[in-house]
Amino acid sequence: MVCMLSIKGQVCSGIKAAGLKLRFCTNETQATREEFVKKLQGLGFDISVAEVTAPAPAACRILKERGLRPHLLVHNDLVPEFAELDKANPNCVVIGDAAENFTYANLNEAFRVLIGMEKPVLISLGRGRYYKETDGLKLDVGAYMKALEYACDVEAEVVGKPAKPFFESALAEMGVPPEQAVMIGDDIVNDVGGAQQCGMRAVQVRTGKYRSVIECVEVVSFSMTNFTPASILIFSSNALYLPSGLKCRALSQ
Amino acid sequence: MVCMLSIKGQVCSGIKAAGLKLRFCTNETQATREEFVKKLQGLGFDISVAEVTAPAPAACRILKERGLRPHLLVHNDLVPEFAELDKANPNCVVIGDAAENFTYANLNEAFRVLIGMEKPVLISLGRGRYYKETDGLKLDVGAYMKALEYACDVEAEVVGKPAKPFFESALAEMGVPPEQAVMIGDDIVNDVGGAQQCGMRAVQVRTGKYRSVIECVEVVSFSMTNFTPASILIFSSNALYLPSGLKCRALSQ
Repeated sequence: MVCMLSIKGQVCSGIKAAGLKLRFCTNETQATREEFVKKLQGLGFDISVAEVTAPAPAACRILKERGLRPHLLVHNDLVPEFAELDKANPNCVVIGDAAENFTYANLNEAFRVLIGMEKPVLISLGRGRYYKETDGLKLDVGAYMKALEYACDVEAEVVGKPAKPFFESALAEMGVPPEQAVMIGDDIVNDVGGAQQCGMRAVQVRTGKYRSVIECVEVVSFSMTNFTPASILIFSSNALYLPSGLKCRALSQ
Repeated sequence: MVCMLSIKGQVCSGIKAAGLKLRFCTNETQATREEFVKKLQGLGFDISVAEVTAPAPAACRILKERGLRPHLLVHNDLVPEFAELDKANPNCVVIGDAAENFTYANLNEAFRVLIGMEKPVLISLGRGRYYKETDGLKLDVGAYMKALEYACDVEAEVVGKPAKPFFESALAEMGVPPEQAVMIGDDIVNDVGGAQQCGMRAVQVRTGKYRSVIECVEVVSFSMTNFTPASILIFSSNALYLPSGLKCRALSQ
């Protein structure tokens, strides 16, 4: 069976019609899952909050398990994800893509909280280097994570992609072994590298993130030979935000 | 001869009276050398611009030699040091301790200049992790350097301490071999480590920079056995800004 998937709104129903499971693995940390899903639904995607694996909820689970009270350096719109946690007298710092909240004052404040700890705990919601928005390329959370790591001589615990536990948790929630899953994303490290480390296959699509292919819309082909109909496709959210309907050709037996 | 030096104003004349040469090696990048010297003169130090080795002039020499046009991410007060350089159509980024200029917009702009180059050139006026001001600890240039290094997958060329060429240039300007020089500073990496890599001896004093000794004013002793009267003492500027007259006991034959 050849399954042609046009990644533009109809993608979800197309995949589901082909009998494939679907999951969205995103490093989105500028919005709650609810807002993220609403945005995609607005673009015509058949998607629910339960189908999304995102760093903030994963971080919340870790914080609760270890009794950590976070100082947050995150985007304002992500704060509600941490509503249930005690944030008084913080004993760790959680950093996400805070965007405009990456001010000199906020960075110094997060640094002071960290350096004031006997053993600094820094949790980062991803390790991306940069990303592209309509007004140009922007430094991603990974760059600011490195700044704090260096200043405090500490290694951050990365919760989002490409961390292995993040992909494993997505697979576990779907009940599918890694060898039956395909990751489709645009980031060679976060999407492709992270998935491959878990034993998954991965397809890299090209979006505006890559300088050499800014204008390029490619047809990406991959073979689904040896995959069962129960296989899942895991999409990076970036792979969905394509300017003009990048086509993904999925070939299965 | 025992030479007692109270590092409080009289230090320069005391050293000079003892027949020792003197140099100030500073990573100060929040002011021009003129302003830096004026500040120290105001504190009673007998010091001239010609006695100061600082990163910005060193960077200017490198930029001129290599025909580089800098995009500056530095403190406003440091900009005059780069007045003579062509800054149109930049082909490198120079980063200093920009303090309040470390905004989200300015960091993204510096990043875009770098990532737009075929082979990004990042020159950093130091690699300090953090420093202390009256209103608390602050991230130093090294942290922001690491952020840009990571985002652009590039290694910065560090011009200030602890770079070996920086100390070598100070020694060359004085015409003194490293084994006859003593570095006195408060930073174990930038001052002590850098000087030792050049074959100099080094003395670490303790200032408010170190959390465990914030309130501590220590007497630091070192022996000047085997040093000739022409030996030089190289001071880190931080070693001069001591709250209550840290004493430095210099023992010579």
